Amino acid sequence: MGRTDEAIEPRHVADVVLRDGSTMRLRPPLSEDEADILSFFRDLSDRSLTQRFHGHPTVDERLVLPVLDPDWNERGALIGMHGSRVVALAGYVRLRDPRIADVAFAVADEFQRRGIATRLLEQLALAAASAGIEEFVADVMTSNSAMLRVFADAGFEATRTSAAGETEVRLRLAPTETFQISADERDHRAVAASLRPFFAPATVAVVGASTRRGTIGGELFRNVLRGDFAGAAFPVNRTAEPVAGVQAYTTVADIPVAIDLAIICVPGPAVFAAADEALEAGVRSICVISAGFAEVGAEGRERQAQLLALVRAHGARLLGPNCLGIAVARPRLNATFGPRALPPGNVGVSSQSGALGLALLERAGARGIGLSSFVSIGNKADVSSNDLLEYWEDDPDTEVVVLYLESFGNPRKFARVAQRVARTKPIIAMKAGRTASGARAASSHTAALAGSEAAVDALFHQAGVLRVETLGELLDATALLAGQPLPRGRNVAVLTNAGGLGILCADACEAAGLELAPLAAETEEALRPLLPVEASVANPIDMLGSATAETYERALPVVLADPGIDAMIALFVPPVVAGAEEVAAAIARAVETVAACDKPVLASVISADGTPASLARSSVTPFSYPESAARALGRVAQRA
Amino acid sequence: MGRTDEAIEPRHVADVVLRDGSTMRLRPPLSEDEADILSFFRDLSDRSLTQRFHGHPTVDERLVLPVLDPDWNERGALIGMHGSRVVALAGYVRLRDPRIADVAFAVADEFQRRGIATRLLEQLALAAASAGIEEFVADVMTSNSAMLRVFADAGFEATRTSAAGETEVRLRLAPTETFQISADERDHRAVAASLRPFFAPATVAVVGASTRRGTIGGELFRNVLRGDFAGAAFPVNRTAEPVAGVQAYTTVADIPVAIDLAIICVPGPAVFAAADEALEAGVRSICVISAGFAEVGAEGRERQAQLLALVRAHGARLLGPNCLGIAVARPRLNATFGPRALPPGNVGVSSQSGALGLALLERAGARGIGLSSFVSIGNKADVSSNDLLEYWEDDPDTEVVVLYLESFGNPRKFARVAQRVARTKPIIAMKAGRTASGARAASSHTAALAGSEAAVDALFHQAGVLRVETLGELLDATALLAGQPLPRGRNVAVLTNAGGLGILCADACEAAGLELAPLAAETEEALRPLLPVEASVANPIDMLGSATAETYERALPVVLADPGIDAMIALFVPPVVAGAEEVAAAIARAVETVAACDKPVLASVISADGTPASLARSSVTPFSYPESAARALGRVAQRA
Repeated sequence: MGRTDEAIEPRHVADVVLRDGSTMRLRPPLSEDEADILSFFRDLSDRSLTQRFHGHPTVDERLVLPVLDPDWNERGALIGMHGSRVVALAGYVRLRDPRIADVAFAVADEFQRRGIATRLLEQLALAAASAGIEEFVADVMTSNSAMLRVFADAGFEATRTSAAGETEVRLRLAPTETFQISADERDHRAVAASLRPFFAPATVAVVGASTRRGTIGGELFRNVLRGDFAGAAFPVNRTAEPVAGVQAYTTVADIPVAIDLAIICVPGPAVFAAADEALEAGVRSICVISAGFAEVGAEGRERQAQLLALVRAHGARLLGPNCLGIAVARPRLNATFGPRALPPGNVGVSSQSGALGLALLERAGARGIGLSSFVSIGNKADVSSNDLLEYWEDDPDTEVVVLYLESFGNPRKFARVAQRVARTKPIIAMKAGRTASGARAASSHTAALAGSEAAVDALFHQAGVLRVETLGELLDATALLAGQPLPRGRNVAVLTNAGGLGILCADACEAAGLELAPLAAETEEALRPLLPVEASVANPIDMLGSATAETYERALPVVLADPGIDAMIALFVPPVVAGAEEVAAAIARAVETVAACDKPVLASVISADGTPASLARSSVTPFSYPESAARALGRVAQRA
Repeated sequence: MGRTDEAIEPRHVADVVLRDGSTMRLRPPLSEDEADILSFFRDLSDRSLTQRFHGHPTVDERLVLPVLDPDWNERGALIGMHGSRVVALAGYVRLRDPRIADVAFAVADEFQRRGIATRLLEQLALAAASAGIEEFVADVMTSNSAMLRVFADAGFEATRTSAAGETEVRLRLAPTETFQISADERDHRAVAASLRPFFAPATVAVVGASTRRGTIGGELFRNVLRGDFAGAAFPVNRTAEPVAGVQAYTTVADIPVAIDLAIICVPGPAVFAAADEALEAGVRSICVISAGFAEVGAEGRERQAQLLALVRAHGARLLGPNCLGIAVARPRLNATFGPRALPPGNVGVSSQSGALGLALLERAGARGIGLSSFVSIGNKADVSSNDLLEYWEDDPDTEVVVLYLESFGNPRKFARVAQRVARTKPIIAMKAGRTASGARAASSHTAALAGSEAAVDALFHQAGVLRVETLGELLDATALLAGQPLPRGRNVAVLTNAGGLGILCADACEAAGLELAPLAAETEEALRPLLPVEASVANPIDMLGSATAETYERALPVVLADPGIDAMIALFVPPVVAGAEEVAAAIARAVETVAACDKPVLASVISADGTPASLARSSVTPFSYPESAARALGRVAQRA
């Protein structure tokens, strides 16, 4: 993952996710680490020690001193920490030819085969390259196949020379595309594994689950129960009083089963102790709902840094703090404190603002949008939308991704990952803080620093991310992508019973970059007998106010069959002859009967009673207004 | 009114509205009019003849020949027609000094005092000025005070010299501002009078009212009854079978009372005969619902020209053809064939598209918008939105005007009238056909030729008309203007329980040209005790998720009292502690308690159940999304 948070960490400190999804902090070894590093060497097995030193050295301070306090020019070194224990060490020493450095690794026996050496190599290579070193050389015992594989798979251009049981490996540090792809693949597998307990926990502890209604912890725990969670949930509170009929515990450690995910709802200052207790009890996925961290100023930032360091020391991952929680459709987990259940579906939502998440959940149902998962990332001290993209990429339940962003942690990483994911799953993004007022408000909200707007636009464009500007557009575009195939092109047919609506829609289509292509001659021929002579079979197709439900049902498949048409927008306003409900039902039926309709069909049926129920239930996407349908289709067609 | 329709009428033909609201066609006298003009002179009273000729001439062809077939250079002349009868004559003759022409008038005795001479003078002056004539001179008998008043009030710079019972009047034809204002005032009074029977008829005939349900005439007549019309409505159809329980007649002439307004719903080719019959029966306001006129090509254009000429010949006015009808709140008249009743209120709506009108009526109720009157102008052969603006200017029931336009008949006239009306009543306009696709669709719809977009924007801007782009924005801006005072400036306060919503709204406010001004120090002081310490009292004011209905009720008046704030947007998304209904009710109550609140308050309460009922009933304007509230306020603040 290679995430470095410059805001709170010194240079050369990196938090990495390992192959099994656990995390590890890598940092330079300092003088005060001498004893711990000595212990690390002493604890190595004979085999590991031989592989490191190509013999049996005396293990004393002479082995340790050369790696302490690296200057990064002549010497670079990193140790991997598990809590306060050193479990890995790697370093380089520059040779007489200053373009080359010698490099060597050691990993505690019980921590081997988790990808730690690979992560150390990546980080050391970055540091060496910035010191002007062009090549790493390593002498590896030919029998040490694990280490040889590390060098082979890292993605650097490598050469090997073997002689007398030793293999000399030379790595060109200039980053190659192969290196980037290899690093991304490692990241991807590791991050997805690290997030699994958030998305598919068998056991959840809610720390701070109060017996009182109206409290965040109390409501969140009840939401878990109300959602009919497929796993087991355990309330944790000071008194161990049962909550909503479920036995409670005073600490996570008291719970008789292992806990996959701990949701922490205690007040900000009490979060560290609660997290520590859960981590000590073996929990590796922590979600902190509580506020009072980086969003409230210097003291909060310090509190957040301490919490993150604690989580790292345990190789765990942290969602939040200052968030609404997480809800996932498949295990029926609603670990949020909002008032709405998650409508199940195929959309993965990441929201940097809890409120936006709440708003989206309030409106999703009415808009016919279902969610595979909803993740409120809050201050995103650790888990970011980049990580969620990595998870959703492989998640079979997620077909569309929605991101609400107030800031970017790592824009280059975002661009790489989003571009890859967007190839198979459309990504819709809304970025707030696009004006000065909005950016000012954002900075006091989730401690976010907004980037330049032009840069954000370029970033989204390059990555193939569909950017929307407003909450209404977000819902419209999501409803369309969640329910319909992508259009193959920009040619849209507009079918209406009212000329005025057709004009509005034509205007909005053109403004949205769509084209009202002429229909094929055969299509016009096939339409004419269905319509009065005064009707216009040009596009927009004005069937006139006399059009009935049957007219729609017969005309719609004819137009959809036109090979020059990539998508259709059907419009209706009730005149004297037909009612909104019956026409809506006819439109829905017509689309069902088009065998394997692979073109998106949008409809705006304008009625005092709102969207007719038959449309809301159908495979047609309903819109309040002709223009909002055109705008949503225009956005989506950017991917055509 | 001075409307000349170049498309169907030769030069120097003008239809004018007279002081009493009747209309008259002015045209040049041709050779074949000789006998009719002779009759006109013969029928003049002695007094009128003397005033015209300053003596008693022999009335024969020698009086008539000089005015026939004017060349407009040496001689100009116009006659006023009432049906096929000549009822007025005026002409000029160029003098030896070519900058000057002599001018004289005669009006049939029973047509005097209706402003005909003034209209003739206006039209002659236009023609003379384009021939390079700079001054009119007229010798008027000093006893002819009516004629002297015509010259004095026309608005031209005038000088008088009196001697021996005669007054020489000289008019400078260069149009002065006074001339324009005088002409506009005459237009205004005349047009308003001519439209009164449409808006306040005591009796309405529905020609083509069928006994059958589902027909346009049948539904329209039933709508009149269902609307509880305050006057009397009479169905007219071929069989005279009663319609919906009301006695029917075979012709308008058979109806035992005088009819103020005839609504014609018969098929296009039968319209002329039906209109003729109604006009002969004395009806002076005709609304033609039927299609099949200029919107269907050359034959239809000819049919429309004939219909208009017929209406003119009777001095009547024509609404439509190809329209949805008219509905007016005060007499509870719903003479449309749409399925919705008119929600009564203060908004006057003119729609060039019936469908847009239907769509607006479908959504108005839910949006809390009430209408004073709804006029579908269709092909606007005669009555245009310019005329309606003149009527609504004085209509005490209309406080906001909404125009849906597909084309401009007379843009200069629109600019002058709209600018005057917009000073007291906000005008919201949507102009369709702004893109090539839309314009193409519009031309086959209501026979409209769309103008250049930049010109339209400039026109609206100059006239102080608020332009909206979409149907949703039209409803939003109308709801705001119909229910709230205008903001005095662009400074808006945003009050929210959710930071993310505040950011979205701040972005949208800035994009809409509004400013989130800092609050006064006293306002911040007064807010702090109401909110948790972590809340932000900067603008947007983030009261945090713990804010209750009471918090809103207490904070809202404090912010509204800030003298630097011109408007407020209150946002809410239900968190754990408060429900949408109770917060909405609190916001509504808070605004009621601010005595004489003269600042607009907008609210977006995001709830799965839609807009809370208490908000919809209150003086707060509700919006679906924070961004739509910001956009509507931004539009309206253009008038601040």
